Amino acid sequence: VILTVTPNPAIDMTYQVDRFRSGASVRVGDARSRAGGKGINVARVLVSVGAPVLAIAPAGGRTGQEFEEDLTTSAIPHRLTASRGATRRTVTVVEQGLGEATTLNEAGSTLSETEWRELLRLALEAASVSQCIVGSGSLPPGVPQDFYAQLVSGATRLGVPAVIDASGPALLEAAAAGAAVLKPNLQELRESTGVPDPILAARQLVQLGAQRVLVSLGARGMIAVEAGDDPPWWGRLDKPLSGNATGAGDAAVAAVADLLARSGADTPQMLRRAVGWSAAAVLAPVAGEMHPGHEDLVASVTVDRSAELFAGSL
Amino acid sequence: VILTVTPNPAIDMTYQVDRFRSGASVRVGDARSRAGGKGINVARVLVSVGAPVLAIAPAGGRTGQEFEEDLTTSAIPHRLTASRGATRRTVTVVEQGLGEATTLNEAGSTLSETEWRELLRLALEAASVSQCIVGSGSLPPGVPQDFYAQLVSGATRLGVPAVIDASGPALLEAAAAGAAVLKPNLQELRESTGVPDPILAARQLVQLGAQRVLVSLGARGMIAVEAGDDPPWWGRLDKPLSGNATGAGDAAVAAVADLLARSGADTPQMLRRAVGWSAAAVLAPVAGEMHPGHEDLVASVTVDRSAELFAGSL
Repeated sequence: VILTVTPNPAIDMTYQVDRFRSGASVRVGDARSRAGGKGINVARVLVSVGAPVLAIAPAGGRTGQEFEEDLTTSAIPHRLTASRGATRRTVTVVEQGLGEATTLNEAGSTLSETEWRELLRLALEAASVSQCIVGSGSLPPGVPQDFYAQLVSGATRLGVPAVIDASGPALLEAAAAGAAVLKPNLQELRESTGVPDPILAARQLVQLGAQRVLVSLGARGMIAVEAGDDPPWWGRLDKPLSGNATGAGDAAVAAVADLLARSGADTPQMLRRAVGWSAAAVLAPVAGEMHPGHEDLVASVTVDRSAELFAGSL
Repeated sequence: VILTVTPNPAIDMTYQVDRFRSGASVRVGDARSRAGGKGINVARVLVSVGAPVLAIAPAGGRTGQEFEEDLTTSAIPHRLTASRGATRRTVTVVEQGLGEATTLNEAGSTLSETEWRELLRLALEAASVSQCIVGSGSLPPGVPQDFYAQLVSGATRLGVPAVIDASGPALLEAAAAGAAVLKPNLQELRESTGVPDPILAARQLVQLGAQRVLVSLGARGMIAVEAGDDPPWWGRLDKPLSGNATGAGDAAVAAVADLLARSGADTPQMLRRAVGWSAAAVLAPVAGEMHPGHEDLVASVTVDRSAELFAGSL
């Protein structure tokens, strides 16, 4: 089973509107809401391909009940810890006919020390019978920046590989704890390390202790840097796709976790599948879903050692 | 007691953000939510001045529970009818430092015929022991356009004056049913009647059957047209105020209902108080609240018969 740990889950609301103008009163045509947060999106993708998964997250308040009900409705196996603060919301406004979405992210309620320790304890208890553990998304107020690092250390002691999708100090600490894979996007990588060149920045995370760093570059694919002096990899589609980029990174994390859980995968395989699943997520309407042609997309991905040449253009 | 009937109530969420750009991902600094809808704002204002009030509305789903809890917390006496559909939400995004707010309005769940008839029945049952009844805000899907007209007719049979704040066909039907006061704003009045001149448009509502029409004009005050051939009234402050216009119309309705409930008020008195309370609402941060200096503002309002001269400039 693959564990996904989501310290800052949300009820994601999506509003369809005709036209969205700042300062106006706008009629919402269609309103939907469902359980979200990056680790929940990873779990949705894994459920959609039939991979065994267990989603772990805190939940509280009325939104926490709604969150749990939606996980059940969505057939996502889960174990939730109790939080005194209510589960946050996000509101995404989608304009009819335009691809541009505007997202409003609540920061999330504070998790007390007792609460985040219980979350960590439950995750590591479940890790002992899992093949891969994923930690994904922002940390709510109150949770220390080394939360993912503690998750990585605990999982490593159990011999379970950890994939972390985070940013800032949480990403650096997860690197130092020896994460099997880190998956920042280009902007997160640059902001976290302060290094503009993505290869040098990823190498810095590897020097800190990470085994592999996959950097997502949007339509330009992904690059991968691994421990050692070998040249980095670049994976991409021949033609970039356009669509809904929300959740593309979560599909990449799901692809990597799925391969790590089966063991024996090398970096180019991971990169190929991560780029293919990401592309399939771009072609799907909402985060956590993939276009059914995801394996054809995987087969069409080019992976080679040209990342250093390419990185100069970023 | 003053009854306020709110067929389409909401959980009003307010998001404070630093900067709001369409197409971006925005961090929400402060997120609040509370029971809303125009009739609920009217009830809040009345509670704040110590007037006896009873708020009547349908409520359903998890948001309906939240709605009821907030009414209790806010000390707003209420009686709610059950709806199968969940109470809707609105999301208002306020940019730090800028006055402009963007509001996203969900349309609301459908009320079945059984549900809206029960709402009407409860309102008229309570009307029999009340001094004034207010019907305010949009009608949710499923509710006929003559809902407020039925409320007005039922109240009139009981000798209770009805104040209606509505737009479109619902406003015209409430006029024909003989509402004591209609309170559209200028845009609603024009759109409902198809008549650009506000005095002629208000006269049309009076000819349909309304006893008085108060038209809110934002910073330019309000005009009032009453049955008969007398020239219309104009009420305004000497200096326009700037602030949060949301809820200003609801404060005007509360002012009118409060006077009607005490009986013996004439149109200039209503206009004076409506303009003063509106201004006090503009000076308060959120809908349903008034600046404590509302009676000083009332005293500073100018009311005269100059509306026809003034209307040419609108």
